[in-house]
Amino acid sequence: MPSIIQEKLDQAAAILDEHNVDVWLTFVRETVLTPDPALDLIAGMEMVWQSAFIVTREGSHYAIVGKHDRENIERLGAYREVTGYVEGIRNELVRVLMALNPQTIALNYSENDVAADGLSHGLMKLLSRYLQDTGLDERFVSAEAIISALRGRKSPQELERIRQAVKTTEGIFEQVGAQIKPGQTEAAIGAFVHDLINEKRLGTAWDYDYCPTVSCGPDSPVGHAGPSPDYAVTPGTLVHMDFGVKENGFCADLQRVWYIRREGEDDAPEEVRAAFNAARLALTTGFDALKPGVHGWQIDEAARQTLIDTGYPAYEFAFGHHVGRMAHDGATVLGPRWERYGQTPYGVIEAGNVFAIELGVFVENYGYIGLEENVLVTEKGAEWLSTPQESLWLV
Amino acid sequence: MPSIIQEKLDQAAAILDEHNVDVWLTFVRETVLTPDPALDLIAGMEMVWQSAFIVTREGSHYAIVGKHDRENIERLGAYREVTGYVEGIRNELVRVLMALNPQTIALNYSENDVAADGLSHGLMKLLSRYLQDTGLDERFVSAEAIISALRGRKSPQELERIRQAVKTTEGIFEQVGAQIKPGQTEAAIGAFVHDLINEKRLGTAWDYDYCPTVSCGPDSPVGHAGPSPDYAVTPGTLVHMDFGVKENGFCADLQRVWYIRREGEDDAPEEVRAAFNAARLALTTGFDALKPGVHGWQIDEAARQTLIDTGYPAYEFAFGHHVGRMAHDGATVLGPRWERYGQTPYGVIEAGNVFAIELGVFVENYGYIGLEENVLVTEKGAEWLSTPQESLWLV
Repeated sequence: MPSIIQEKLDQAAAILDEHNVDVWLTFVRETVLTPDPALDLIAGMEMVWQSAFIVTREGSHYAIVGKHDRENIERLGAYREVTGYVEGIRNELVRVLMALNPQTIALNYSENDVAADGLSHGLMKLLSRYLQDTGLDERFVSAEAIISALRGRKSPQELERIRQAVKTTEGIFEQVGAQIKPGQTEAAIGAFVHDLINEKRLGTAWDYDYCPTVSCGPDSPVGHAGPSPDYAVTPGTLVHMDFGVKENGFCADLQRVWYIRREGEDDAPEEVRAAFNAARLALTTGFDALKPGVHGWQIDEAARQTLIDTGYPAYEFAFGHHVGRMAHDGATVLGPRWERYGQTPYGVIEAGNVFAIELGVFVENYGYIGLEENVLVTEKGAEWLSTPQESLWLV
Repeated sequence: MPSIIQEKLDQAAAILDEHNVDVWLTFVRETVLTPDPALDLIAGMEMVWQSAFIVTREGSHYAIVGKHDRENIERLGAYREVTGYVEGIRNELVRVLMALNPQTIALNYSENDVAADGLSHGLMKLLSRYLQDTGLDERFVSAEAIISALRGRKSPQELERIRQAVKTTEGIFEQVGAQIKPGQTEAAIGAFVHDLINEKRLGTAWDYDYCPTVSCGPDSPVGHAGPSPDYAVTPGTLVHMDFGVKENGFCADLQRVWYIRREGEDDAPEEVRAAFNAARLALTTGFDALKPGVHGWQIDEAARQTLIDTGYPAYEFAFGHHVGRMAHDGATVLGPRWERYGQTPYGVIEAGNVFAIELGVFVENYGYIGLEENVLVTEKGAEWLSTPQESLWLV
């Protein structure tokens, strides 16, 4: 079986050819401080000194790295030529690029897609200076389309790992639900989840302090706020949690919502159930629209319009985002054509893409209903990776 | 007591004034994917949507962030004005900057200092486009000098945390030494250290898989290689470990070396002790030269020349680097004037700086002797933060 790095490098060469680009150059340094998200796809480790990874449309791969990183890159067995340097990368980089003499060199910058924007402005200036006498600095293009396709088309091993992360995350949601009780603070629920993941040596899909986020009742701020000691589980209100593990390098990103019954209540009040059903209908409408060839914004519009048509205000975020190595895995966004999304809603959905789809409705006096599921796009349409929440979970 | 964020923001305003810069703008997005190392100094949390942090030389601080991040930034209590937006950052960013009308706007890019190079090339293009009708895009300068000073001058709380990380790291080195025995593989030593830090819920100062690095004997590759199952502790050879914890957000970075005695041996062979003493002499020569006002390269030269004068080959890296929030904490490098270090060896050492100083000698047939200590620069000169290794540790 090829390694997961080899899987991605093989995909990369094919994508370069598809986009008629000769060379893709990933140029990084001290990636612990300033990571390039693309490096994870093609090397899967941190680099210390200035390092260059070159992939050609013919499928040749070159790495030029600091002497002490050479051994680790060689061990990958995925690069045809690995060179280690001591004093500076310039000579070797110029030599390899001049020999390839590419007409186009794709670099990792993008105004739109953060996952394709790993090249820092300082490194861009440095690279331009290194190549200024060669004419190669005039052949730079953005690698946005290449990285977007490479990151978005999940390989078999990538998909397998995402499935596992979803499964683990769902298990943790179940454990949370089994012990929720009135009086418990958001902070206590957050600590319960952290204990579980630390015990299992798992990571979180995003910033540890805000993963999970927990919102109890109508007064707790929804969003990226950390679980607070000031809000507690209260009968007659909602508890909402947004959470995902990072397991074996891959993430899940799910939301679930509980209703805490008052004494004597069998079910949630009508207005809460109605809001849940509206959110659920909008989510499944977006799910049904999700298939190869459609633009990201069209999916968002389908879900958004459904919610508005049922009389609820539209959510202030994108309906969906890729999920994979990161919870927000770059590339095409299933979002509205707003300034802050740049060109990302105009991307085209492809088979092999994995998305988190989500939306929410705030119910006055009760709290926030947020739904989020993870789905795979196939040639035939979308498939659930998570088991969708079909009704409020009652406590 | 001011928070650690307030300590740094207060320092920042004073440094802007020192450098005659009106405004420092940190512009980021999705920092889980593409962090800006400077953000840690002035916000200490991840941002999701495009976010702008503005510090003026008069000491006013503004934050413009996505709606869902607003609450968290407000809770810091360190920003005078925090604005949350929904559709796009542009209008508010232009409004605040136009009102300030700065003659110079420092941005986080640098060819030399990776810790001052957090602005991606794509975001630089986007920012230039946002400001193109205002004329403000012609007032950009590099924030390299500002970030270098801000990161390099450790505040009281920063220094306290580094001292603790050094202490914890030294404790782990002791525990490793107490259980080393012939036959143990590098991988087993690495796993022992990982168990200790997981138990204590500590982080590693650099990439987990390569922290610690462990080298047993003369054949194991030295550098950033992970501990291997293929090399084991062997009598008559050296064991070298490079390691540091990250505790409460701050790092240590130390190296220690053991000699494994053969049966009947009291001490290491003469040639091994001689090499240790040469390394130790070079290290202390560099230490003695370390004081405010000196250039980074001068310290490296003092240590390097001492080693060469005693007949050993020079190390192929820099003698020293800042240590703090990261093991390699950016700014001035105590290194040779080589291409790959750019301008960083030309930086001037300041009181309040904390450095890891290190060098090594390879002893044929025995293995690698690497020494690394952490030190604080005061007005009077350098002080040890770690307890320096003064002779080979014998097993």
